[in-house]
Amino acid sequence: MVFNGPSLCYNRAMSLEKVFVSLQKAQARLALENRRARDRALEGAAAALDGGRGEILTANALDLERARAGGMKESLVDRLLLNDQRIDDMIGGINTVIRLEDPLGRVRTGWTLPNGLLVEQVTVPLGVAAIIYESRPNVTVDAASLAYKAGCAILLRGSSSALESNRALTALIQAGLEAGGGIGGAVALADSGSRDEVDEILRARGKIDVALPRGGRDLIRRVVENARVPVIETGEGNCHIYVEGSFDADNAVEIIANAKLQKPGACNAVETLLVHRDAAAVLMPKLAVRLAGKAELRCDGPSRSAIGKTPPGLALKDAAPEDWATEFLDYILAIKTVDSADEAVDHINAYGTKHSEAILTGNMKTAEEFRRRVDAACVYVNASTRFTDGGEFGFGAELGISTQKFHARGPMGLEALTTIKYLVSGQGQIRR
Amino acid sequence: MVFNGPSLCYNRAMSLEKVFVSLQKAQARLALENRRARDRALEGAAAALDGGRGEILTANALDLERARAGGMKESLVDRLLLNDQRIDDMIGGINTVIRLEDPLGRVRTGWTLPNGLLVEQVTVPLGVAAIIYESRPNVTVDAASLAYKAGCAILLRGSSSALESNRALTALIQAGLEAGGGIGGAVALADSGSRDEVDEILRARGKIDVALPRGGRDLIRRVVENARVPVIETGEGNCHIYVEGSFDADNAVEIIANAKLQKPGACNAVETLLVHRDAAAVLMPKLAVRLAGKAELRCDGPSRSAIGKTPPGLALKDAAPEDWATEFLDYILAIKTVDSADEAVDHINAYGTKHSEAILTGNMKTAEEFRRRVDAACVYVNASTRFTDGGEFGFGAELGISTQKFHARGPMGLEALTTIKYLVSGQGQIRR
Repeated sequence: MVFNGPSLCYNRAMSLEKVFVSLQKAQARLALENRRARDRALEGAAAALDGGRGEILTANALDLERARAGGMKESLVDRLLLNDQRIDDMIGGINTVIRLEDPLGRVRTGWTLPNGLLVEQVTVPLGVAAIIYESRPNVTVDAASLAYKAGCAILLRGSSSALESNRALTALIQAGLEAGGGIGGAVALADSGSRDEVDEILRARGKIDVALPRGGRDLIRRVVENARVPVIETGEGNCHIYVEGSFDADNAVEIIANAKLQKPGACNAVETLLVHRDAAAVLMPKLAVRLAGKAELRCDGPSRSAIGKTPPGLALKDAAPEDWATEFLDYILAIKTVDSADEAVDHINAYGTKHSEAILTGNMKTAEEFRRRVDAACVYVNASTRFTDGGEFGFGAELGISTQKFHARGPMGLEALTTIKYLVSGQGQIRR
Repeated sequence: MVFNGPSLCYNRAMSLEKVFVSLQKAQARLALENRRARDRALEGAAAALDGGRGEILTANALDLERARAGGMKESLVDRLLLNDQRIDDMIGGINTVIRLEDPLGRVRTGWTLPNGLLVEQVTVPLGVAAIIYESRPNVTVDAASLAYKAGCAILLRGSSSALESNRALTALIQAGLEAGGGIGGAVALADSGSRDEVDEILRARGKIDVALPRGGRDLIRRVVENARVPVIETGEGNCHIYVEGSFDADNAVEIIANAKLQKPGACNAVETLLVHRDAAAVLMPKLAVRLAGKAELRCDGPSRSAIGKTPPGLALKDAAPEDWATEFLDYILAIKTVDSADEAVDHINAYGTKHSEAILTGNMKTAEEFRRRVDAACVYVNASTRFTDGGEFGFGAELGISTQKFHARGPMGLEALTTIKYLVSGQGQIRR
């Protein structure tokens, strides 16, 4: 592996096929590195980013210039932007990953067979990961460090708008890992910028062990439809909160406001409120006041009537049938009244995306039914849906939130990048 | 759900699309059944098979007649054949599944966040499974009972040659589950016999949560290439045994003979023997005697010379390069000498199918290296590769052996049909 200096990616001229082979070889070596070696290499990467601020900012300036020349909206330009603070945050992210427990070499279970064979199930790296993501360059650093910690090689496929920034970051990470005694070749950037590249990655059966799409609906759909390699979907969150009259209305209002307003663009934000008809009369007027001027309410008939006099500044609309199926990702809340917990659960299982669903209740029985019957990655009793997050769950770093049931579900920690291996120890046993 | 009597499948006239919906509904109900209810329903299914022997044998006779009329080889006809003993075995299989521990509702891990939220990771059913399999009708019973135990609905797609037998078995299972207070609709047979049916199942994203191909190479390849739903591959086993001179040669010979001869058609049978050059002189003559008349040896130059005088009856050939990559599934053993454990590991990682790999050694260091470096579902030290099996591992029943790393690896127990759900319990928490 030859590094052409820190501002060049080694694979710029390589075919993707060669990159796959190179990543597999690097991963086989990385799988043998113990935790201390992996952490030291990550320290090297952090130091390289710190020392390479000038290169990062120069590269980023090129991306920003091109983006503005191309007429990119300033809000999106801001997502591209790197500055010293954001570089600090990226370095902090690596340091967080270094502190995380080692996901490898854990004996998850083990037993001895009647014939004396000892069977142990031990965690090992999943292999070579590919992440396909959109503008924010910090994902480059997060993904590379998480994969390295989990003993996986990673192919980074960022957006073309962040190409120069990603090149600079990847080259620094590669050089930094090497400087820390690690394996720079375990990280590669797919930087041809062509669309075919994504398809080639998604069809690389036997070369890519998992593809992680991170971005909008279109990207995820494209990946899911075209992939021949295993994918972890990080999909939509059409999340619900169902409120019963047995739960304190003021507390309910604060939880709903939190779940709607704190970050409406997040997949764990609430999109539809389901109110038990016995709760509506007390809850709705308070909620209307709390959300007036902050979020638009799209109500069914009974919830609208329960508001009574419309408070000043409240944006109020009639709910349309399509609202129940919509992930607004905006300051909009659909509201429906229901006659029972059963009706709420049926609505959720019909319209939800199996992401995060909450019940607010003082009733043990309905809480239990809700937990049992709702089919979702995270089912909450008496809390905001906004906690569905790797950081909040204590996983330390963000690999995304899986909305599939296969391999990984819900907030993903490093464990999602591992698999198991059975180690069987004998004394000459043969099968009878 | 209407059952048209025990000798008819309820879905014969249904479109597959309707069957998917019906399975999803049945699964949602089944997911709420506790272990006792699921076990009682399975007892009902066992009793129904016992009481339905006449119908089973009548249906099976039709399949056998058609198979023989179509010129099927007798060895394959035998795989189709059911008799009282085989029905007993199927009933015994259900009883084994009943005794298995419940894979559902296990709190795999849990913790409390700094804000007091309790997070619990609990096992739940994966959902609706589809199994696509070849002739043996016992798979119908095994798969249905395993899925039911795991709270999953299952779509059975057997081969057309076993259609009448599978119809009779499925109808009895459905009626038996109902008679046991369970949910007959959680089991369905895809019985149109058309090839398109398989593709429709494999493309049923959001309806089928996992597809399990069980059968030959072509079936598995077809499934893997066409599937848009998650698949668990139960693929080839090009398994190796590597022998060092520090391991007792007589014991090594018995292990190799066991791994080759006991069931050469099994995926965990050994296909290539790797012999350290220091072991060859003692091992090879003994092995040649032991396998003479029983298996053909395909040797490289040094292993052939090490045999010395060819024992009577020994089939001996020169190994061809393609032998290293071949899963013979036959009484054939390829043999290569290597200079070191490293060379053995490199050979295995190059030619192996990540199934089962063994080292026979008295040397701690090479054993450890082998375990660390070999990338396979099961890595054995000093034992036969033939133990890679759900039954041998103590999983009680056979769901197949996964050769992929994603979701399930190695012998699969009921756990492969589960996923997790996070249950989060709060006291009104909002995210800060």
